[in-house]
Amino acid sequence: MRTDASLFVIGTGLIGASFALAVRRAGAFSSIIGFDQDPAAAENARRTGVIDTVVTSIEAGAADAAATLICIPTGEIAAAVVRVAAAQTRPRPIFDVGSVKAPILEQLRLQGGIPSQFVPCHPMAGSEIQGARGAKADLFRDRRVFVTGHEHSDVAVLARVANWWRECGAQVVQTDAGSHDRAVALTSHLPHLVAFAYMAHAGDRADELGPFVGPGFQDFTRIAGSDERMWRHILLDNRAVVVEELDGLVARLLEIRRMLIERHASALEAVLRDGREGRRRYQDADG
Amino acid sequence: MRTDASLFVIGTGLIGASFALAVRRAGAFSSIIGFDQDPAAAENARRTGVIDTVVTSIEAGAADAAATLICIPTGEIAAAVVRVAAAQTRPRPIFDVGSVKAPILEQLRLQGGIPSQFVPCHPMAGSEIQGARGAKADLFRDRRVFVTGHEHSDVAVLARVANWWRECGAQVVQTDAGSHDRAVALTSHLPHLVAFAYMAHAGDRADELGPFVGPGFQDFTRIAGSDERMWRHILLDNRAVVVEELDGLVARLLEIRRMLIERHASALEAVLRDGREGRRRYQDADG
Repeated sequence: MRTDASLFVIGTGLIGASFALAVRRAGAFSSIIGFDQDPAAAENARRTGVIDTVVTSIEAGAADAAATLICIPTGEIAAAVVRVAAAQTRPRPIFDVGSVKAPILEQLRLQGGIPSQFVPCHPMAGSEIQGARGAKADLFRDRRVFVTGHEHSDVAVLARVANWWRECGAQVVQTDAGSHDRAVALTSHLPHLVAFAYMAHAGDRADELGPFVGPGFQDFTRIAGSDERMWRHILLDNRAVVVEELDGLVARLLEIRRMLIERHASALEAVLRDGREGRRRYQDADG
Repeated sequence: MRTDASLFVIGTGLIGASFALAVRRAGAFSSIIGFDQDPAAAENARRTGVIDTVVTSIEAGAADAAATLICIPTGEIAAAVVRVAAAQTRPRPIFDVGSVKAPILEQLRLQGGIPSQFVPCHPMAGSEIQGARGAKADLFRDRRVFVTGHEHSDVAVLARVANWWRECGAQVVQTDAGSHDRAVALTSHLPHLVAFAYMAHAGDRADELGPFVGPGFQDFTRIAGSDERMWRHILLDNRAVVVEELDGLVARLLEIRRMLIERHASALEAVLRDGREGRRRYQDADG
């Protein structure tokens, strides 16, 4: 669907800039307005053609935009949703890209209710290159985007937001906030936590051990190159489920530790086999 | 250097078959003899042209070969070295590819001494495709190969073995067994242990969670697809150092757990930053 309406992007980093490039290419919006708490980042996005106009406040951008996309750390999203909804002259789609969903909805419930035009989203896409420098129009191509409903969802708005993601090439999966958060605690948040912890443990021996790293090390640690501020928010927001999954992993690690101490070869081989077969099941499930 | 001598390969799996293909292409040996405890594997390697001749015992192959390469699980290498050395009509290079070095030397010391013609090696190369099916002549190209000396090393033999690796395209790094084992405990063995443990923890929820896995999960868990029998040997052989490194990692994980429970945002962000910066130092060290 072509339109002459404008999209307002709050946070012109990797995800916000990539969405801007993708919907511009798809022709879904006629112009793109940007705001960033770092004015230089927004100005840079304008100069490189990612956005058309810079505004200096959330309210200035939200008032007349046809839709508002929020791309800021998860702990700050609920407050931004409230400000956008209050500034809108009439309800227009508001959607975000935070990696944790339920705490945002819970904060909104405590602050007067979830606006019906708010559609919580989470695209499974990223880049090793942080910020708008890593932005590209096909960042979401063939990636899954989780679109979550809630008790006040306007289903027509939800369908429009889902369609914008599809126009960016993404595969939309509809789910609910609780299921989403429990799933990504295990599939994404725990691996990030472990990779960060591993590199914090190993980091100061790089000079000595650098020659001993191979492709396995590179793959295993890649996600430890992620932005620490973003991940501090994600891990804290989802801490209840993350801690539960972490406890399960630590129990496994200590079980393996005991097998090593006791030289229990068959039990060790069995748990390693469980791991290899477990991974294969995910490959199968992922198609 | 061209030669009409034969190479004897014990264990015709991924590494043995790839070395055979690589030295054949380089012209370093005129013929390749193979033995595998699984006769079908050896026969298959002959039929596909990886080796020229199959022998049915270690002694039959070792007697007159110009060199013997041992590609079997680490816990079985020392015994094979003893048998090869005893079968040789005169001392010829014996080298292996085990991922742990010091326990092999220790076992040989207890069994009458380390043969001077034994050159412990470890190529940092592998494949997700297990067995000879994954073999390729350029598996070692631009990969590091650790070549370790010991108190009885014949330096001329060590230099010849190092040169064969270079003819396969590898970068030879000379080190000692203890330094090697301490380094790879952290850079390779601990990541494998953690990836296996993580997948053993998460494996039975693949149906439910499959849609929630992204590229980060795939990278983080790739090494859990490794062969459990090989890794059981590696982890047990190097268990003293592996347990020490595991304890260091678990301490970090429990530290992060406490920060999550106590909602200690700044401390959490600091440890995540340590992780990201630690990884960057390895990227720099790796050139």
